[in-house]
Amino acid sequence: MTPLPLPTFSAVCAAVADGRATAAVLPLENSLAGTVGEALDALVRARLSVVGEVLLTVRHQLLAAPGANLDEIERVASHRQALAQCERFLAAHAWQLTIAEDTAGAARELASSGERGTAVIASERAAERYGLSILARDIQDDEGNQTRFAVVAPSPSDAPDAGGTLAPSPDAPRASLVLFETRHQPGALHHALGAFAEAGVNLSRIESRPTGRVRWEYRFLVGVDGDAAKDPLRAALDELGRRAHDVRVLGSYTSAG
Amino acid sequence: MTPLPLPTFSAVCAAVADGRATAAVLPLENSLAGTVGEALDALVRARLSVVGEVLLTVRHQLLAAPGANLDEIERVASHRQALAQCERFLAAHAWQLTIAEDTAGAARELASSGERGTAVIASERAAERYGLSILARDIQDDEGNQTRFAVVAPSPSDAPDAGGTLAPSPDAPRASLVLFETRHQPGALHHALGAFAEAGVNLSRIESRPTGRVRWEYRFLVGVDGDAAKDPLRAALDELGRRAHDVRVLGSYTSAG
Repeated sequence: MTPLPLPTFSAVCAAVADGRATAAVLPLENSLAGTVGEALDALVRARLSVVGEVLLTVRHQLLAAPGANLDEIERVASHRQALAQCERFLAAHAWQLTIAEDTAGAARELASSGERGTAVIASERAAERYGLSILARDIQDDEGNQTRFAVVAPSPSDAPDAGGTLAPSPDAPRASLVLFETRHQPGALHHALGAFAEAGVNLSRIESRPTGRVRWEYRFLVGVDGDAAKDPLRAALDELGRRAHDVRVLGSYTSAG
Repeated sequence: MTPLPLPTFSAVCAAVADGRATAAVLPLENSLAGTVGEALDALVRARLSVVGEVLLTVRHQLLAAPGANLDEIERVASHRQALAQCERFLAAHAWQLTIAEDTAGAARELASSGERGTAVIASERAAERYGLSILARDIQDDEGNQTRFAVVAPSPSDAPDAGGTLAPSPDAPRASLVLFETRHQPGALHHALGAFAEAGVNLSRIESRPTGRVRWEYRFLVGVDGDAAKDPLRAALDELGRRAHDVRVLGSYTSAG
């Protein structure tokens, strides 16, 4: 497998759609920060399928120039999301916070300046790569804040094997992502969700996302337990088709938990 | 009114909570990009009330050093969100895209470098402020992409007047934001939403947000029509209290549309 890094979620999805990439991995949700809306919208617009999911635990380290001590630090730079995820640790110090484009970039910049008064929040891998030392380990607020990534392919049957790690065991729990729209009237969403409730299908999450067509017009994205090709979810989706419109299954895949 | 700019949504909410600021304005939702999760979470954590809302139309301009022409441009820098909102315009050119911390910062940097091969996406106000010229106007994908800001105060009765613009006319439509949690079982959310549907209360949006306590545990945020102190919403909230737990009204305010 050859990695193909691209600058935006749209570019990533376009590469899968036009065949330059076999599959893509997109962050869909973080256990602290919630939905990554732009990634989700790019996936929906490109009409790709979710064929798998991967959970990664996010760990943040406080990195500094080799030899620098914690009490020399005056400023901390990192991506906005990383700073937000280490809020409790940062609140215990009177450091000036600077927002950087990305965590690895902040580490690279610190490595080249050698600035002893500055620390960055980045991964252990960034520390190794740029020769920085780790002043404090695992400084994230949540012990094991996780990001859920979707493995995305042109069609549901294109699940890449990725060395066997994504090959589903036949009895592994399955999950699905479903998109639909309802009319704008009281009770419409409640009525639509009844299709899942009445079939005993568990809803793991729900989101209203802008359709992008008309201002403040939404579609709904739900995460549900089960496989869209099998009952009870199959029956629930049939019923949903009668209660809502533009129903679209983004994918059914082995749940990563 | 003296403005008090602060670096993070949490810092903004803390300033209101501890009395350094009378009120705050937080972006809660964009008509293209959806919910601003971090702002919403900061507001919920700080236990502040939403006392009003303001809608602002987002317009993006392509700015360059004075005298530069469109065909000299090789690179465009801006905030990730701004680049995403001008995707169609950018797709028509073979420019290299660079992510900047914020739009105004990108404009300031371009003004100081004077670099003729670089353009930035920023506001008309940034063009005036930093003496840049506008190469292309209103380049956003959506004619009138809007951001909905919440006016936030320590308690529901603290609505600041802001020169009369926020003073509600008695017959203006009201809207409310409500937070609640349900048990993790099939049909629990459907049952809870029935409280609104049965009272004829219109739901404008719904979101599951991480509670931040347990990984992948969610609370639900709904936007509904009406005032929490008046029927039918008052009755719906009473019923919701029997079907869900940790029900909290974030605020009732005059809807900006």
